[in-house]
Amino acid sequence: MLYEVLDVLSLTKHPYFAAHDAESFNMVLDTADSIAEKTMRPFYKENDRLQPELINGQVTVHPALHDYYRSFCQSGLLAAPFDEKYGGQQLPKTVYAAANFIVGNAHNGFEMFTNLASGAARLLISFASDELIEKYVTKLLSGQWTATMSITETQAGSSLSDITTMASPQADGSDTPGSYRIKGQKIFISAGDHDITENIVHLVLARIENAPKGIKGVSLFVVPKNRFHSSPPLVRLRGANDVGSIAIYHKMGQRSTPAMHLEFGSNNDCIGYLIGQAGKGLAYMFQMMNNARLGVGLAGTYIATAAYYASLQYAKERPQGRRLNNKNAEEPQTTIIHHADVRRMLFLQKAIVEGSLAFLLQCYKYTDLEKISGGNDKQRYNDLLELLTPVAKTYGAEMGIVSVNNGLQVLGGYGYTDDFILEQLARDVRIMSLYEGTTGIQSLALLGRQVPMNNVRALQYFKDEVNKVIEQARQFNNLQSYSGWLLHELLELDITTTHLLNIAVKGNTEVFLSDATLYMELFGLVCVAWQWLKQAATVQKILEKSNTSKDDELFYQSKIETMQFFFHYELRKTKALHERLKDEKVLTVMKENEVLM
Amino acid sequence: MLYEVLDVLSLTKHPYFAAHDAESFNMVLDTADSIAEKTMRPFYKENDRLQPELINGQVTVHPALHDYYRSFCQSGLLAAPFDEKYGGQQLPKTVYAAANFIVGNAHNGFEMFTNLASGAARLLISFASDELIEKYVTKLLSGQWTATMSITETQAGSSLSDITTMASPQADGSDTPGSYRIKGQKIFISAGDHDITENIVHLVLARIENAPKGIKGVSLFVVPKNRFHSSPPLVRLRGANDVGSIAIYHKMGQRSTPAMHLEFGSNNDCIGYLIGQAGKGLAYMFQMMNNARLGVGLAGTYIATAAYYASLQYAKERPQGRRLNNKNAEEPQTTIIHHADVRRMLFLQKAIVEGSLAFLLQCYKYTDLEKISGGNDKQRYNDLLELLTPVAKTYGAEMGIVSVNNGLQVLGGYGYTDDFILEQLARDVRIMSLYEGTTGIQSLALLGRQVPMNNVRALQYFKDEVNKVIEQARQFNNLQSYSGWLLHELLELDITTTHLLNIAVKGNTEVFLSDATLYMELFGLVCVAWQWLKQAATVQKILEKSNTSKDDELFYQSKIETMQFFFHYELRKTKALHERLKDEKVLTVMKENEVLM
Repeated sequence: MLYEVLDVLSLTKHPYFAAHDAESFNMVLDTADSIAEKTMRPFYKENDRLQPELINGQVTVHPALHDYYRSFCQSGLLAAPFDEKYGGQQLPKTVYAAANFIVGNAHNGFEMFTNLASGAARLLISFASDELIEKYVTKLLSGQWTATMSITETQAGSSLSDITTMASPQADGSDTPGSYRIKGQKIFISAGDHDITENIVHLVLARIENAPKGIKGVSLFVVPKNRFHSSPPLVRLRGANDVGSIAIYHKMGQRSTPAMHLEFGSNNDCIGYLIGQAGKGLAYMFQMMNNARLGVGLAGTYIATAAYYASLQYAKERPQGRRLNNKNAEEPQTTIIHHADVRRMLFLQKAIVEGSLAFLLQCYKYTDLEKISGGNDKQRYNDLLELLTPVAKTYGAEMGIVSVNNGLQVLGGYGYTDDFILEQLARDVRIMSLYEGTTGIQSLALLGRQVPMNNVRALQYFKDEVNKVIEQARQFNNLQSYSGWLLHELLELDITTTHLLNIAVKGNTEVFLSDATLYMELFGLVCVAWQWLKQAATVQKILEKSNTSKDDELFYQSKIETMQFFFHYELRKTKALHERLKDEKVLTVMKENEVLM
Repeated sequence: MLYEVLDVLSLTKHPYFAAHDAESFNMVLDTADSIAEKTMRPFYKENDRLQPELINGQVTVHPALHDYYRSFCQSGLLAAPFDEKYGGQQLPKTVYAAANFIVGNAHNGFEMFTNLASGAARLLISFASDELIEKYVTKLLSGQWTATMSITETQAGSSLSDITTMASPQADGSDTPGSYRIKGQKIFISAGDHDITENIVHLVLARIENAPKGIKGVSLFVVPKNRFHSSPPLVRLRGANDVGSIAIYHKMGQRSTPAMHLEFGSNNDCIGYLIGQAGKGLAYMFQMMNNARLGVGLAGTYIATAAYYASLQYAKERPQGRRLNNKNAEEPQTTIIHHADVRRMLFLQKAIVEGSLAFLLQCYKYTDLEKISGGNDKQRYNDLLELLTPVAKTYGAEMGIVSVNNGLQVLGGYGYTDDFILEQLARDVRIMSLYEGTTGIQSLALLGRQVPMNNVRALQYFKDEVNKVIEQARQFNNLQSYSGWLLHELLELDITTTHLLNIAVKGNTEVFLSDATLYMELFGLVCVAWQWLKQAATVQKILEKSNTSKDDELFYQSKIETMQFFFHYELRKTKALHERLKDEKVLTVMKENEVLM
């Protein structure tokens, strides 16, 4: 996927990535693999039982998480995608995402810690003052401190404009200009407390006293768990910053990641520092959230990948029944991978996870291309990313859930027991359609904002990208029909989009967006079909040009067949979605009388 | 549903049910409700933590389960649907199922205990000798003993012909004619051990020494946990029957129901008694399994119903954001039930649970009608039941899972925490597509056996039933288009079925059945559309004929709108299924080279 489908080595032609080559990329992947197998996979099941504990106001986590964090940071992986001036290696995000995929596949409860640190560092570099960058970024990238996104409040989850955490400008005697006293509670704060590092850097959305209501009144603050004397290079802690851990949420899964209920300033002694300009907090946070959204899509995908391989292995080893053309009870049982319905569940998983991974890596590659491009190209890659991020997040999350459930089903009754990891994976993956904006919220963002914005410019860029692949695939006899099929889907998407935008023009936003989630499902199917056709075209070209080994040929053949499976089984689902989305009958918009009972 | 849609009172015109009327039916439902609220609902969450324990070879369960079992049996509910001669009340199964729905909705971990006792009693009455009936049935129906279905073995789950538990005829000195020494292990035995009753009656599938291989060699035995002096009316226990509890499985959910790994005859001292004729074990067991299959569909449905009501209540109480036509941040937040996407998730749940419940109760009514009919009618109802049982089981299970997941999603992040019951319901419902034959197995039974059998006779009866409803609905202006829609779906089902049966005729069973699970999904959609149209026609007739109160009118209106939702959102999914099922491209049947990797 990295070298043949995405051609990541082409990135190294640009000066920014010029220090890299296949060797350095492979080393990154090998490092990730080594960390995954040593510090993560062996503890996956154990960490579901031995959960983080809150004792005397302090959370302790499993030792394996300490080991993981140390290994990941010390190996240089955490800082790798950052600029050299921050101690990074200017590694393409595409390769870094692949490394994350490898570690997350081994254990999905740890990666969030490193991702939060890296996301926070990036946000600070983009928007904070040099002083704040100097104080915090090195600490985060070296692994000495971790970070959180402290966004959600009891009354403000999906509706972030209703945040009420307050920030009062410090009177005289404040230790730093731009410092505020923070007061309020935050809930569902992942990695919100732990004993891995000496400090935790909370990025807190809050409202400065007398700020306007709504989004324009929300600002972003950096709030350390512990205050420190900042006299670099030596930074010594000097006591707590009045950030209290109220409780750990008891979750269905992902139990090794503590989701915290935090209180800032219960003793009026919590100091925070304004990042950038007042009133721009949500805009800044969205940079981190966009990254995190791709991360959640990736998490859905790597959990589903773990489930796919576990169920594939089981299917290859488990004897049960005989093939349907041969019911002779005298013969020994066959392994269940020979049963068509089991194969269907395995193909479905493979189609989802390899399709979703390709789609996500494509998005990460747009991030890298945006970084090294200028002018129109930069804008085009940014547009593509803005358009596709909610889709890649949602496909990875929602179809990850579907995929893991199929994996569990392959194991029959055993899948429901903790003799195997499937039931845990099923519990873990379920959060992904909630993290970083629910599927409903992502769908509103897609249809309500990203598609219509700038006169559907991003959608046009997207169609160009898909058409390129359609053209590529058309050159191969065995792919022509699929190429035509995707072209047809693209045209249908256009028709349905136009239909919906015509409703928007009439001004009834509620009706326009009432089936946004179905539009999202439709869009996701087209995106993954695009990625499957791209994989198939890449593979077909290799098969026709070079002498491949028998093993490689089988691997490439498996890609072609899974592409076919995706089109014949999954892509067909667009029909019902188009019909519904073009159907004038409005059923879900609230009318005068409540009929839900 | 009972009185207006299914007209259960019409059953009381027949002598068998003549002792009943609306008052006695309501009393049954009230009794169930009282048991549910007293002994079940308050313990639902607690029972997820305080699980059954196996200590010194004996399982103990939570006291609430003891209370439930005693209340349910002592109220007469357990025996109610049985003949008067066995101490029953000849209650229609349709009403009994409604009572089960009520208790299961309150707590889904208990009902299996009573269902197993009742199912075992029914099996013994149908197939066992008078002597065995006398010894066991009263004990089961009075609630003194419980029962299990001891079917699955490590190597024999879906493939029951591979059972290896052995039964050796007793030599001289045996205490009862027809007694055997049983030896073997059984896994996943629900309610396989507990401390509620003094005895447990295991119905064990085993192979008599030298029996032929395959299904014809499998016989059914009654194997009590404890032996007893049988001198009715006094039955005294006289020691253990060598049935050992090896382990309790650790499950994702349904944790209050112990799933046991049992060993029979580890000391060669386990005695079992042959039920009916040797070699007919699977046929006998299928009577109980068919009942259990409807029970699993019902369980999927009552769990999903609990999730629907919990998420509905949350949606009515939870303020978040503003309606999309009004983004004024100055205004207070609206409750989330006003958001179209939340309403879509609630309508989807309502469409699934009330559609599935109607479908299941329809099946139970066929059971009652079969009981009181003779000749062709009896056969017709039996045919309908055989055809529809796997469908009702699978729809309730698979769509129950989908429905609960939508309920969880309505709650956002809270749904993933144990602050609410949604995450537990999601874990509990997941087993339903595995219990009593996986969805794959049910689908093979539907397409491979029930549809083609007797020259598609059952399918013809089914179409007659659906056509009756189509005719009914056609009389109402507002239902005409839906009536035509369902007629079209019925014709399409016919075309696709014919297409598949033509493949079967050519003899390639693997290809014929490769997409049986998709055919099952298709069939389920048509069945539930049929039931929704039936509900709508019933309701429309009432609305047009009588003066209904404002509240009732709203209730009836909610039925019409949910029917519309089902057609416009759910029924459309048949399109992709038809296309795939008529598609000649075979992708999942095992070919020469394995491409799944």
